[in-house]
Amino acid sequence: MTDQEKLFIKMALDAWHIQIDRTNSLINSLSDEQLQQEVAPGRNSGVYLLGHLTAVHDALFPLLGIGDRMYAHFDEIFVNNPDKSGLPKPGAQELRTSWAAVNGKLSQHFGSFSLKDWFTKHTAISDEDFKKEPHRNRLNVLLNRTGHLANHLGQMIFLKS
Amino acid sequence: MTDQEKLFIKMALDAWHIQIDRTNSLINSLSDEQLQQEVAPGRNSGVYLLGHLTAVHDALFPLLGIGDRMYAHFDEIFVNNPDKSGLPKPGAQELRTSWAAVNGKLSQHFGSFSLKDWFTKHTAISDEDFKKEPHRNRLNVLLNRTGHLANHLGQMIFLKS
Repeated sequence: MTDQEKLFIKMALDAWHIQIDRTNSLINSLSDEQLQQEVAPGRNSGVYLLGHLTAVHDALFPLLGIGDRMYAHFDEIFVNNPDKSGLPKPGAQELRTSWAAVNGKLSQHFGSFSLKDWFTKHTAISDEDFKKEPHRNRLNVLLNRTGHLANHLGQMIFLKS
Repeated sequence: MTDQEKLFIKMALDAWHIQIDRTNSLINSLSDEQLQQEVAPGRNSGVYLLGHLTAVHDALFPLLGIGDRMYAHFDEIFVNNPDKSGLPKPGAQELRTSWAAVNGKLSQHFGSFSLKDWFTKHTAISDEDFKKEPHRNRLNVLLNRTGHLANHLGQMIFLKS
C-alpha cells in the first residue's frame, strides 16, 4: 500500500466517523420525547430517521459481503414505507440500541479491511460491470453512505430546541 | 499513479459533485420567494444557507492555495453572523449567480489537480504539523466540505413544499 493509499482510507473512514459521532452526540443529547417529534412540521420524525439510517447501514452487511442483516424487518417500516404508514415502530430505546449495534459492528469490519478489501466490488454489481466501472467498490459505498447520513443528520439537528 | 489512487480521486470528486448537482437541481426548482423562506420555523432561510455555502466554498481558494476569494464580503453576512443579523443580504438572483461562479471555478481547478496536488497540505497547517499529520491535505478538505454541504442540503430540501 502506498502512503497515499493508506491516507485515503484513513480520510474516508474519518469522514464517516465524523458524521457518526455527530449523530451519536445529537441523539444522546435528546430525550426519547424529543426524538419522537417531527424534525420540521409535516416532515419525518426523529425516530423514523434514526430507524431509516439504521436500516440503510444494516443493509451494508450483505452489500459489502461481510455478513447478514441484523434488523432486516426495519426495511418495511423505515425504507419501503413513509413515517405515517401506520406500521408499528420499535420504541426510541430499541432504536438507539439498534443504531449503536449496527455501527459498532460495521466499525469492527471497517477497521480490519485491507486496501484490497476496500477496492473489492460490492455485491450489487456483476463481475462484468465491475471490470468497466471499477470505482463501484466498497470504499465508494462508504463515501455515498457518509453523504446520505450527512443529509439526514442536517435534518435531525432541528430536533434540538 | 496507481489504479487505486486514480480511482479514489474519482470517487471523492464524484461524491462532491453528487451533492453539488443535487443542490443545483433543488435551487433551480425553487422560486426566489421559496428560497427566501426559512427551511423550518425559526431556522435559517434558504438564501442564508445558500450564501453560507457559497462563502465556505469561496474560502477554499485561499485554503487550497489556488487563488483569491471571489466574494470575501459574504463572510461577514453568512459566516460570522446569523441569518437574523439585520445586515443587508444580496438578493436571491445574485446568490444563485455567486454560487454557480464559485463552484464552476472550483471544478476547473479540481479537474486539473494531479495526485500530488491533492496530497499537498492546505494553507492552514504548518509544514511542521503536516509532517506529523499528513492527512491534513487538500483531498481531506474536499471530503470535509462535501459533508458540510450534505448537512445543509438535507435542510434546504425542506424548502420544497
